[in-house]
Amino acid sequence: MKYCSFCGAPVELRTPAGDNRDRHVCGECRTVHYTNPKVLVGCLVRVGDRVLLCRRAIEPRYGLWTLPAGFLEDHETTIEGAKRETWEEAGARVEIADLYTLFNLPHANQIYVMFLADLVAPEFAPGPESLEVALYEERDIPWGHIAFPVVEQTLRLYFDDRRRGRFGIYTGDIIRLPGPERAFEIRMLADRGMNDAR
Amino acid sequence: MKYCSFCGAPVELRTPAGDNRDRHVCGECRTVHYTNPKVLVGCLVRVGDRVLLCRRAIEPRYGLWTLPAGFLEDHETTIEGAKRETWEEAGARVEIADLYTLFNLPHANQIYVMFLADLVAPEFAPGPESLEVALYEERDIPWGHIAFPVVEQTLRLYFDDRRRGRFGIYTGDIIRLPGPERAFEIRMLADRGMNDAR
Repeated sequence: MKYCSFCGAPVELRTPAGDNRDRHVCGECRTVHYTNPKVLVGCLVRVGDRVLLCRRAIEPRYGLWTLPAGFLEDHETTIEGAKRETWEEAGARVEIADLYTLFNLPHANQIYVMFLADLVAPEFAPGPESLEVALYEERDIPWGHIAFPVVEQTLRLYFDDRRRGRFGIYTGDIIRLPGPERAFEIRMLADRGMNDAR
Repeated sequence: MKYCSFCGAPVELRTPAGDNRDRHVCGECRTVHYTNPKVLVGCLVRVGDRVLLCRRAIEPRYGLWTLPAGFLEDHETTIEGAKRETWEEAGARVEIADLYTLFNLPHANQIYVMFLADLVAPEFAPGPESLEVALYEERDIPWGHIAFPVVEQTLRLYFDDRRRGRFGIYTGDIIRLPGPERAFEIRMLADRGMNDAR
């Protein structure tokens, strides 16, 4: 950010009175421009023993498989956003069963909120951001071709939960490790046992 | 938004190619400026049969009671942010036990993420944004002087859970009703029974 979005004057980076970190502050109208992490929302759509995956038709991670998810829009609830993204990317109308995972991705400045959902009608079709949409059983999931660690981890939690016959709600961090390769560390807040015992 | 924060030229409101809603787009450098809901994070700190409340020293809702919470900062996890806000507003060092509530406040363009937490040391003190910090048992909670519906609802869920001896994880919407009075409708995604049965 170089210019004030309200008055067009240059901004400077400084700590406002009463604050404890640098912000972009307008040199003319004194507006403080706060920036914050962005929320992405999506659905793990379950159909019997299969789940709905989309193959990405856009960068990043073109051609790889993902769960339908995207940026939450202004004045939208996470539930509305998750349903909208599932419609836009997978052509599927869904009913939300419950919250499933909340992951922090501090390297990307993102929060992912994923819901468990069910099809309202047995129909789906790729939207403009998907090459194809398909239902996968656990044993057929293309694990080596999943677009994002947050998607892989949500799928792994889901199939583990399905085996034990009980669905938790999970939160944790996905930390990108230093270095040129795409390597991540996943830190769950509470392990499965703790979560059960609450 | 009137001016491009990258180049200072005027922005126009239009739907970019491949998009389905109006965005602020720079007339010069063509940057699309997306805006999104903001995330607030905080803690319900439990100390035996009491919870930690802060009386607000700032607007809005000056003088009313709240749970320590505030805006998530760039590249911060929700867990880090909730601990930071609890330190800043209540002078309390806490350990996070688990996610507790995720509420959508579409009228305010906000998402609230609250965690269950425990004191690391038996110390707390008002920060600059609090007039006082105190521990309250359920029967002494100043229900008529709670700052925000999201705080009141989180407290009610907590004391209900405490009575039944089992803590859920809850999500829902807090909808501001039309009209001049501060009236809200709370829509939980799954009722208590459904949440238990998942």
